[in-house]
Formats: sequence, C-alpha cells, structure tokens
Amino acid sequence: MLKAQYQTRGPVPQDVIEAVELQLPAPAAGQVRIKVAAAPINPSDVLTLTGEYGMLPPLPAIGGNEGVGRVEALGPEVNNLKVGQLVLLPVGCGTWVSHLNAPANKLIPLPEADPLQLAMLTVNPPTASLMLSEFVDLQPGDWVIQNAANSGVGSYLIQLAKLRGFKTLNVVRRDSAVAGVQAEGGDLVLVDGPDLAKRVRAATGGEAVRLGIDAVGGAATDHLAASLSEGGVLVNYGMMSRQPCQVSPASFVFRDVSLRGFWLAKWFQKATPAEQMKVFGELTQLIASGKLHSRVAATYDVSQIKEAVAAAASAERDGKILIVPK
Amino acid sequence: MLKAQYQTRGPVPQDVIEAVELQLPAPAAGQVRIKVAAAPINPSDVLTLTGEYGMLPPLPAIGGNEGVGRVEALGPEVNNLKVGQLVLLPVGCGTWVSHLNAPANKLIPLPEADPLQLAMLTVNPPTASLMLSEFVDLQPGDWVIQNAANSGVGSYLIQLAKLRGFKTLNVVRRDSAVAGVQAEGGDLVLVDGPDLAKRVRAATGGEAVRLGIDAVGGAATDHLAASLSEGGVLVNYGMMSRQPCQVSPASFVFRDVSLRGFWLAKWFQKATPAEQMKVFGELTQLIASGKLHSRVAATYDVSQIKEAVAAAASAERDGKILIVPK
Repeated sequence: MLKAQYQTRGPVPQDVIEAVELQLPAPAAGQVRIKVAAAPINPSDVLTLTGEYGMLPPLPAIGGNEGVGRVEALGPEVNNLKVGQLVLLPVGCGTWVSHLNAPANKLIPLPEADPLQLAMLTVNPPTASLMLSEFVDLQPGDWVIQNAANSGVGSYLIQLAKLRGFKTLNVVRRDSAVAGVQAEGGDLVLVDGPDLAKRVRAATGGEAVRLGIDAVGGAATDHLAASLSEGGVLVNYGMMSRQPCQVSPASFVFRDVSLRGFWLAKWFQKATPAEQMKVFGELTQLIASGKLHSRVAATYDVSQIKEAVAAAASAERDGKILIVPK
Repeated sequence: MLKAQYQTRGPVPQDVIEAVELQLPAPAAGQVRIKVAAAPINPSDVLTLTGEYGMLPPLPAIGGNEGVGRVEALGPEVNNLKVGQLVLLPVGCGTWVSHLNAPANKLIPLPEADPLQLAMLTVNPPTASLMLSEFVDLQPGDWVIQNAANSGVGSYLIQLAKLRGFKTLNVVRRDSAVAGVQAEGGDLVLVDGPDLAKRVRAATGGEAVRLGIDAVGGAATDHLAASLSEGGVLVNYGMMSRQPCQVSPASFVFRDVSLRGFWLAKWFQKATPAEQMKVFGELTQLIASGKLHSRVAATYDVSQIKEAVAAAASAERDGKILIVPK
C-alpha cells in the first residue's frame, strides 16, 4: 500500500511530493476499506503543493482532493455498501493513495461507468456548470467566451454550453491546441493575442458576448475583458500564466464590464444540500452516460507520483493526468 | 477674446493645445454672451488631449468640459437671466475660453459664492458622491478605502464620507502628500506599498472594508483589492499610473472581491432628471456653503493654456489647476 505525501511546500511541486509506504489498520466500526480506482491531479492540487492555493492543509499531508474507488472490505456495522461497489471519495480526503479507510456514510455510490471519468466529477464539472449559471442569465443562442479552452474545466464548459444551447468562443495560447478544442465541439476557436477583441467581433458579427471565463490571468484577462460587450461579466477562476490579472480601466470604466471570481469551495460552503444534490445528480448522469467527458493524457501509479505531478504541472500536456493505483 | 483649441491629439498634451483669437457674433435670439469666470483642468481633459479618453470630440475642438461664468449680454428674447448672474456652463461645451455664446435655457443660475469652487461642481463632486452610494450600501461607521486620496475626487470623497458618517482609509503615493490629506480630514492616511493590506488590517483592527476606490491602476489596484474584506467591491475610475489594473486572482477567487468601473458620463445617460437634480442640488448647496471644497494649486489665463495643461498633467501638483480668464 502506498500514499503520496509531502512534508513541505515549494516552488517545484514534484520535488516536495513522494510515494511512501502506507500502513492501514483494519476498518473500524462504520468504516470501509477502499481500493482507489482513479484520482486526478488538478491545477488546484499543484498550487496546494507550491503553497499558492487559498486553502492549505496542515503538514505533513497526503495529496489529492477527489477520486473514486471500490469497496474492498467492510468494517463492523456497515450495511449500506457492498464489496465491489464503486463509490465517490469524500472531497479533500487525500486521494493519491492506493487504499484508504473511510466512513461508510460519507461515500456516495456511483453507477457502473468509466472510473477515470467519474474520478473527475467533483471539481471541474461543477466549476464549469456553475460559472455558466451563477453570474449571467444566459439564454439559448447566447455567446460565452473562455480562455484555457483546452483545459479540463474548458472542455467541460464547451460540452455543458452545447447541452444548454449556448455558443462558445474558445481561446487557446498555441496553434497546436486549436484542433483539439474544435474536436471537443467548440463553436469558434481563436489563438490569444492583443487583437483578440477585434477578431471576436469579426467572428460573431458583433453579437453580444455577456460572459467571459478567465483561467489564465496576465494580459489574457484584458483580452477577454475587451472582447465582452457592454455590461458583460468576466469571471476569473485561475492564473495559469502565474501572473496577476491585467485589466484596462477602459473596459471597466467606459464599458461597465465587471470582474468577479469563482471558487467551488465557497459555493460548497453556501449551497444547501438540495442545491448540491441537484448539480451533482445532473453531472453524474451526464458523465455516466458518456455525454460529458474529459480527455485523459496519461495515468500513473502512486509510485510514479513525481513524474505524474511534473506532467500535470506542464503547460504542454493535452488532457488530464490521473493517478490509477496498480 | 481667446479660446484654447487643438487640431490634433498627441502624447504630450501641452504640445497640441494652443490659445488662439476668438471671434464671436452678437448673441442670437435665445442666447446670452458669457464671460467665463473659471474652468478647471480635469484628468479626463488631459486624456482627451492625448486621445486616451472614452469619448473624443471631433477635431478641431476647444478644451474644457465644465466651468462657470457671468452673463455679460443678453440676446433677443431672453427673459430668465440678468446681466451679472453667475451661471453653470453646459457640460462639454468647450469651457477654456474667455467668452462664449450659449443658449439661455441650458444655463443653470448659481448662488453667489466662490466661482473657483463652483466651477468644479459638475465632474468631481458627483463622481465622489456616486461612487460612495452606487455600489455598496455603506452605513455610518463603515470604512471606505481609496487611493489617489490627494486628487480632486479623493478630496471630495473624504469630505462627503465624513458628512455621511463613513471613515476613510486614504492611500497616497508619496510621503509629502500625507499631511495634506490629513488636513482634509482623512481618518487614516497610508503611503502605498506591497504590504498595504497588512497595514490596513493593523490600522482598522481588522474591521470590514467593503468599498475600495481606485484611480491609479497598476499594482496599486491589487493593493486595494487585498485590503478589502471578503465580498468587497473595488471601483476603478482612473489610471493615473498609466498602467492597466493588476489584480491577483486570489482576491477575486478566494475572497469574492469584485472589480467594477465608474464613469460619470454613463450615469448621466441613465439617471432621470429628478435623480440628477437631487445629486446636484445637494452638491451645489454644500459647495456654496463652504462645506465641500477643493484645494486650488494655481490659476492661469487662457493665454497661458500650455503652462496650465502641463501643470495639470504633472503628478506632483497639490490641488487643482483652473483657467481663470483675465
């Protein structure tokens, strides 16, 4: 049994994380032993290792925030789960492990479907879904613009927008990413640049673009702001450029654009159980039925955690990196 | 008779503007001849000369957007004004002139009070007043933070906040500006820097700061964003640093801060005549009674327009520059 643990934080994430032996007692009363089936490496996980994230666990800590596993053994007094059942792991429990013991009442049974896809249910799909619904009352036929369109969230956003009848303007940072985003179903794909707003207006024929989604920061934020129509809302949820957002006052002062932020952790704090159930119920069905999916770049065993984190932290990967314990 | 005119726009504002002879016909029916008493040079006027403003008049154009004058002669069919009456000039009419003919029904009679102070009524006081009221529902005792606190708007904002019972955190860019802002009544005055948020929290004892007002841009925007409490609103209305606003996603994503813009021209478009009357009625009374005032750095004749604009464009001045025709 293995766990991917870190004792310190530092600028090179693969330097601080390492695979170490895991000792687990037999599951206690009310617990089950889980064999982890798959657990993704998200950008927020990388920022947690470097110390740049908004919430940092006490050290030492085990990496990984989401994932799925199969019930391997039941502790005493567990009646609601069966051995072999696929379950969603609790958020933030340290999922980059081969095995873990978890309280049976915190595990959500999942339909039998691709574990790799279901492992990515908790973080990116609700982020994409809620950014599309919480800021602007979009109607079928409306445009939304996003950058980092070839990211995990970007891909889910394209698919969810299409299911809801919205049209997507997708911005990527390199020519080599265009074809992939087109294949995902992006209505328009543009490579970022200082003249983005001009090309957006040409491509849409000047139609309104009331929602922008920024995961990049730096000058890319300003390019999206300039591409929005008057009164538009720009929602930031990441800083892949590792630079602060740059925004010209012209967009905010002269055209009444506003800049907001989205953090799923905050939504979890505020949303009622019924609201959470509604969002996750819909997303689970879409993923299990194959209507919502994410590209997978590569999978790694827990023993390969350093290579896996290095791959996840690279700007050049195409698709998600997941831990799939042997 | 003189007017300050420009034929082109360019990066050095005093290079494009010049004083030239003005020929005026006798006032036509419904018009009056005005002798201008005072007209300020605002940052927006400088940006209009450099071409960086959100609204640019066709060329050639006369400089100046606001001011006051005295009625010097009545054209036929004018019954509502008397020779010698002090009046507010229509916004945007080109006020850097010694004389002008204007429609009598566009001139608002003013109480007899200091023309220099009344000349600054139309732009900066409503900007300060509306930024305090339109974005956050502040209550007496609440904090508001602003930078460029030694600017024209900054000074009005300090005075209006005090009249409404709000406390001001005032940020300036140089030590030499601190004493002036303290003398204006600023509750706290801090010199800008990367550790601003820390000093703000120490100074307020961690009390909420829900509204921030940014006229500087660049890293200064981020310093204000970091100083706001969770869910705070940052309103930008200028870019004195001539750099785009820089904002760390951390404030927006992790602490739900939002960035908005304010432009008085937009408010004028949307506000009803009754709303405009309410705002300007209150401000006229406050200025005429001496409860609201602006520091005056220097006054210049129209013939000295190049020196006047150069002085207004300088970051080091302390108080407003006005044109006061001989």
